[in-house]
Amino acid sequence: MNLKPIGDRLVLKKQEKEEEKTFSGIVLPSSAKEAPVYAEVLAIGSEVEEDEKMKGNIKVGDKVIYSKYAGTEIKLEDTDYILVKYEDILAVVE
Amino acid sequence: MNLKPIGDRLVLKKQEKEEEKTFSGIVLPSSAKEAPVYAEVLAIGSEVEEDEKMKGNIKVGDKVIYSKYAGTEIKLEDTDYILVKYEDILAVVE
Amino acid sequence: MNLKPIGDRLVLKKQEKEEEKTFSGIVLPSSAKEAPVYAEVLAIGSEVEEDEKMKGNIKVGDKVIYSKYAGTEIKLEDTDYILVKYEDILAVVE
Amino acid sequence: MNLKPIGDRLVLKKQEKEEEKTFSGIVLPSSAKEAPVYAEVLAIGSEVEEDEKMKGNIKVGDKVIYSKYAGTEIKLEDTDYILVKYEDILAVVE
Amino acid sequence: MNLKPIGDRLVLKKQEKEEEKTFSGIVLPSSAKEAPVYAEVLAIGSEVEEDEKMKGNIKVGDKVIYSKYAGTEIKLEDTDYILVKYEDILAVVE
Amino acid sequence: MNLKPIGDRLVLKKQEKEEEKTFSGIVLPSSAKEAPVYAEVLAIGSEVEEDEKMKGNIKVGDKVIYSKYAGTEIKLEDTDYILVKYEDILAVVE
Amino acid sequence: MNLKPIGDRLVLKKQEKEEEKTFSGIVLPSSAKEAPVYAEVLAIGSEVEEDEKMKGNIKVGDKVIYSKYAGTEIKLEDTDYILVKYEDILAVVE
Repeated sequence: MNLKPIGDRLVLKKQEKEEEKTFSGIVLPSSAKEAPVYAEVLAIGSEVEEDEKMKGNIKVGDKVIYSKYAGTEIKLEDTDYILVKYEDILAVVE
Repeated sequence: MNLKPIGDRLVLKKQEKEEEKTFSGIVLPSSAKEAPVYAEVLAIGSEVEEDEKMKGNIKVGDKVIYSKYAGTEIKLEDTDYILVKYEDILAVVE
Repeated sequence: MNLKPIGDRLVLKKQEKEEEKTFSGIVLPSSAKEAPVYAEVLAIGSEVEEDEKMKGNIKVGDKVIYSKYAGTEIKLEDTDYILVKYEDILAVVE
Repeated sequence: MNLKPIGDRLVLKKQEKEEEKTFSGIVLPSSAKEAPVYAEVLAIGSEVEEDEKMKGNIKVGDKVIYSKYAGTEIKLEDTDYILVKYEDILAVVE
Repeated sequence: MNLKPIGDRLVLKKQEKEEEKTFSGIVLPSSAKEAPVYAEVLAIGSEVEEDEKMKGNIKVGDKVIYSKYAGTEIKLEDTDYILVKYEDILAVVE
Repeated sequence: MNLKPIGDRLVLKKQEKEEEKTFSGIVLPSSAKEAPVYAEVLAIGSEVEEDEKMKGNIKVGDKVIYSKYAGTEIKLEDTDYILVKYEDILAVVE
Repeated sequence: MNLKPIGDRLVLKKQEKEEEKTFSGIVLPSSAKEAPVYAEVLAIGSEVEEDEKMKGNIKVGDKVIYSKYAGTEIKLEDTDYILVKYEDILAVVE
């Protein structure tokens, strides 16, 4: 099963608690502890790929930080996904 | 009887509880339990078909996930329909 | 006496309770019971007829479903009319 | 003394209670009783006359229905006037 | 000392109570009594004079009615001035 | 040390209480007493200088009146500065 | 590890308390004490570099003042970073 994001949206996969420490060392400030703000990019909507300004900046597999008040979460076969618009991706962690 | 959506809207048909489990395995997070967020596409407004960015991304018969705060529900001969704008379709489940 | 809608507005005529059941079988969900959401098109504003995207999609005589929070109701010689913008027409019932 | 409306505004003259019944038979629904929603057009701003979409649709002398939450009322030598934007004129009563 | 309005703003001079009655006979409805809604034009911003739609409609010396929720009041050497945008001028009193 | 405003912003320097009386005689109405609304222009952002409509209307050294709800105040070596957008400058005092 | 800002965002590094006094002498007014408003620029999003109006105005290494209600803070390996949009950078301290 696959999720194809519509418009300028991306499908992200939440990082597990374990991974959270290992891969980036990012610790959220206390007031933001309840909501994760980074994730891995699983799929990118066609409008992102076709837009002169947006295309090429984010690739499938990238670890990204997104705005914690943005995005819609869904759970599919025990995995949490986030559907988020391109404009709500703050940065790529390289 | 038929519903022709106006503008960039789509007519969706809510999935039955049974189907819900079978076809996609999507389980909504507890806070979102009260409102289904996916459905089947029954009809697509003419503006979607004529728009360079929108056309071709969603087809009649597609299973889609839409924003749970979007859309207008109507009941017609015991079936629930949702009228929703293209921009509120988050993803197609393939 | 006649109502000529201004801009991209349409004049709708509310359906009687009786007609409501017969013509479409639409039953509104409980939370929406207090406001009818469909009507018959009586007149169409000139901007609708002149707009490339809007023209031809809705005709006088069509039964339409409109957004229940949209439109202005007026009563004229015992008939209820609704003045509503094109963008608030959700679908045509065919 | 004369009021020249600025921009896409019109000057309307409120109909007297008597006239109200005679000329149109319009009775406002109970919830809208406190504010009149129709009037006669006295003057039309120059932007209306120069705009391709707006010009010609409303003439001085027309009886119009306007949005009851729109417009600014002023009293001049015992007559009530309403200054209202073109977009808030809902329909012309013919 | 002089006030040069910036952008599409105008500098207005509030009419004295005495003048209020004499020059126009305008009496504000009770609910609007607390705020004067007309004034004399003292200066006009350069953007108004350069804009195809705005230029020529209002002249220095004109008596105007402006939206009572618009504008910024300042007092300079015992005179009250109002700085208001062109779009908030409702009408010229001729 | 120097502040280079970004975008269409300007750096203003608040007028001292003493100067306030001398230079312009502006007295704020009682309800606006708590916030000064005029200042001297110290620097002008590059977008102002490059914009056809904005350039030339305000110069470094000008005394200006700005909207009291606009702007961000900062204190630098005992001087108060205000960073304000061009659109929030109401008038130049000449 | 590196943060690549997306869109017209910049990555800023908060100044330490010590540095705060030394480098700029900026003291925030009492009501703004809780949130720092200046920082050093670490990275600049590609849209800033490609935009005719934005490019060249801010460089990596610049000390900037940003709007204290803007930006998203994240902590990465004991350093605080701020992700902020170009439009929320108020000034460069030179």
